[in-house]
Amino acid sequence: MKCQKCRDKAVIKIARANAKYCAACFNAFFVSQVRRGLEREKMASRSDKILIAVSGGKDSLALWHVLSRLGYETAGLHIDLGIGEYSASSRRYVELFAERENLEVYSYSLKEAYKMGILELAGETDRSACSACGTVKRYLFNKVASDKGFPVLATGHNLDDEAARLLGNLLRWQDAYLEKQSPVLESEEGFVKKVKPLYRLSEQETAAYAFLNGIPYVIEECPMSVDAPMLVYKKALNLIEHQSPGTKHQFYLEFLEKRKKEPDRFLPKDKKDGRVCQECGQPTTSQICGFCKLMNKPSFTGRPAAS
Amino acid sequence: MKCQKCRDKAVIKIARANAKYCAACFNAFFVSQVRRGLEREKMASRSDKILIAVSGGKDSLALWHVLSRLGYETAGLHIDLGIGEYSASSRRYVELFAERENLEVYSYSLKEAYKMGILELAGETDRSACSACGTVKRYLFNKVASDKGFPVLATGHNLDDEAARLLGNLLRWQDAYLEKQSPVLESEEGFVKKVKPLYRLSEQETAAYAFLNGIPYVIEECPMSVDAPMLVYKKALNLIEHQSPGTKHQFYLEFLEKRKKEPDRFLPKDKKDGRVCQECGQPTTSQICGFCKLMNKPSFTGRPAAS
Repeated sequence: MKCQKCRDKAVIKIARANAKYCAACFNAFFVSQVRRGLEREKMASRSDKILIAVSGGKDSLALWHVLSRLGYETAGLHIDLGIGEYSASSRRYVELFAERENLEVYSYSLKEAYKMGILELAGETDRSACSACGTVKRYLFNKVASDKGFPVLATGHNLDDEAARLLGNLLRWQDAYLEKQSPVLESEEGFVKKVKPLYRLSEQETAAYAFLNGIPYVIEECPMSVDAPMLVYKKALNLIEHQSPGTKHQFYLEFLEKRKKEPDRFLPKDKKDGRVCQECGQPTTSQICGFCKLMNKPSFTGRPAAS
Repeated sequence: MKCQKCRDKAVIKIARANAKYCAACFNAFFVSQVRRGLEREKMASRSDKILIAVSGGKDSLALWHVLSRLGYETAGLHIDLGIGEYSASSRRYVELFAERENLEVYSYSLKEAYKMGILELAGETDRSACSACGTVKRYLFNKVASDKGFPVLATGHNLDDEAARLLGNLLRWQDAYLEKQSPVLESEEGFVKKVKPLYRLSEQETAAYAFLNGIPYVIEECPMSVDAPMLVYKKALNLIEHQSPGTKHQFYLEFLEKRKKEPDRFLPKDKKDGRVCQECGQPTTSQICGFCKLMNKPSFTGRPAAS
């Protein structure tokens, strides 16, 4: 198997593109796909400082690696969710990478700040761990980026993540999410701009990039996510991708094209206006934001806590 | 496990409805779902004669059984595709059922009419067997129904078929198919009305109905369909259904509701006008219909044959 660019020995085959690459040419392909995403979706200007949400997994560390190679000024943000050895290990990989690459990282421990990790928080409310985790991360990502003066927050979501999410939104016809699902969400009313520069690259490709660039990362999936619907959507799409390589790519990228051409088609009929949380001042669509509802745990019963 | 209706011993569990039924109550449930589909979608009036496309499999024979139990005047139409023992066996099951139930069946043999079966036909053109089969069946179903004076043609497509087809259409964003995918297609310009009364019932449920009513049917899948994309879509949806019972139901039935409320959302942007085939006079969107293109095999190269 030879690299189709330089005829050197190929180390990876990308079925959807019917392409084979050596390590150097694969890296070039990977970086060009990230650059294309950044430019096509106008994710960041050269002078924008980018805060990268890093979990310690392959996607977010590969993203941080590429963006700093591309010359962006970056820092990492890691939320330690307090899920036993998994979180401890994730944090170590983030700190190891930051030290090795001489990059700044903000570490934020839920247990230190709130005296409880995500499991205890979920246990004290009527939320699943994944749901509570989503609320906490969305909130803290935005808050830290705002507070530290980063105009752009980047996450490591890849093509598999986005295609699985799109599938879930379509299976349940979640119009409000279909409108919002995008590799770039512009800043508005207290929200910083959010971007997903890996949206054109598959999970297999980000894993290969991390491996070929010697980036150590936490390999285990979060122990809480074993039964997460997203994992089942990914498995289902992988079944189809295996028989028809390129399906995920076509599914997600054509959705983005269609929505650009026909935005009305994906507009929810009952859109809520943006407001400011009465407790913390962060943006929300109701009186109290999801994070404060979650944190007001003793009184949280689905109704906003008394203020 | 007890039947939730009569407390007799239950024989089937329907996860999506969290329901358990004995044989008699399951039959009542099944028939009520067919009746609801017929009424809600205005599929046929009591006086309409219904031609049922019967392959010899569980779905089409279960459909024929229910519709004749519901008092509709029906006849079967079987196309013998000439696929070796599979087709011979399918035909025997259809004729056995018709004889036992004292119902009329029209059998149509491709080999007798055209001196070749679907495999030879596909081999002599550049079409896959499944694609040629689809063209031949669509054409002959409509032609026989028209010629014999049936205002309605019914097929045995079930919820799994329709959900898998919807998934395939969404994965490739096939707008023209999204508009047309419906449990009822009204008659227009040479096309008889086409209905799918089993669209609310899963494959598991039609198999149970056939079993519980002692309907013998051909169990093997068509040997040509082993690699068909539809089977992979079904597998993928079954993975998701297993974890979240009810997903297929919600996915397909909500799609139908959405399209009723927002028809513009699913209208293709480049709709073709209906015409009449210059060779056979049947309806088509181009000069020569797909069936005649296929049958003009020696000259068929993707262009219409010279007329």
